[in-house]
Amino acid sequence: MELYLIRHGIAVERGIYDEDRDRPLTDKGIARTQQVAQRLQTLGLQFDWILTSPFCRASQTAQILIEAGLGETLETSELLEPDRPIEPWLNWLSAWPPAQIQDCRLALVGHEPNWGDWAEQLIFGEIRGHLSIKKAGIVGLSLPPFELLSWPEVRSPLGTSQLFWLAPPRLLL
Amino acid sequence: MELYLIRHGIAVERGIYDEDRDRPLTDKGIARTQQVAQRLQTLGLQFDWILTSPFCRASQTAQILIEAGLGETLETSELLEPDRPIEPWLNWLSAWPPAQIQDCRLALVGHEPNWGDWAEQLIFGEIRGHLSIKKAGIVGLSLPPFELLSWPEVRSPLGTSQLFWLAPPRLLL
Repeated sequence: MELYLIRHGIAVERGIYDEDRDRPLTDKGIARTQQVAQRLQTLGLQFDWILTSPFCRASQTAQILIEAGLGETLETSELLEPDRPIEPWLNWLSAWPPAQIQDCRLALVGHEPNWGDWAEQLIFGEIRGHLSIKKAGIVGLSLPPFELLSWPEVRSPLGTSQLFWLAPPRLLL
Repeated sequence: MELYLIRHGIAVERGIYDEDRDRPLTDKGIARTQQVAQRLQTLGLQFDWILTSPFCRASQTAQILIEAGLGETLETSELLEPDRPIEPWLNWLSAWPPAQIQDCRLALVGHEPNWGDWAEQLIFGEIRGHLSIKKAGIVGLSLPPFELLSWPEVRSPLGTSQLFWLAPPRLLL
């Protein structure tokens, strides 16, 4: 399974909106995210699923991915809100039949420092804060096959996943 | 200090040349490496130094970087040969005056699995084999400031560096 962690684009500064979750993308944020999405589409990337944090800046980013033709299925999950740990999301994932997620390309749209933390946990099994993910940047991870020990017990992807992409918009445009 | 680990391009298969070190890039390897170099040049990247493994496929790759205008200074070092550990190279690096390498952009041209191993050691302090670096691919790392504890003793960049790029040619072209 391939997992893509996509950080939301440039958003309106804190302090203008009462709630952090309501901050939308700026015009520049929208334009740059559209360019990134277009580029990913040109690369032939297709997501079987796009899952987004419910925060405005993330769901706008996910919507741009859909509009660029990168996927058809968009869902919102509170498990991707800022500062959420990875384990509840992995539990959610492991509840799916393995045949359905085995060869799946899944995109998660959300926040920092989550994505850096989650990626580090998937690759190394622990958080160090040593991955730098820019706004509208993307991380590509290959998760090991979900082995059926005795379903729903699966071999954990924590510390066993492979990193194959880490790119800011600058590298993509 | 920014450190870029660049893997050599596609080379002639093993078995055709007596010595592994003599294997040159294929025509496709040359063309693709040139495209990558051109792209990095367009991004405005400039290396203060390019250091290459003496193996033919690596030094050809380094030469292509020079021809694309990515740097002017090219040196060859046996410390970058396949399967060399990172420590002797770090010792070599720490022998330079810190002021000279502090804000330096250094490119190393060499091999896998070295680059994946070295990058993991710089980011996490240990090797897991969980970074996937394609031929003519690039890894960008930010090393912490070389602090003068009592020179030549410096704070080690092992386990304290930041990963900001990991890109195969596909993502760059």
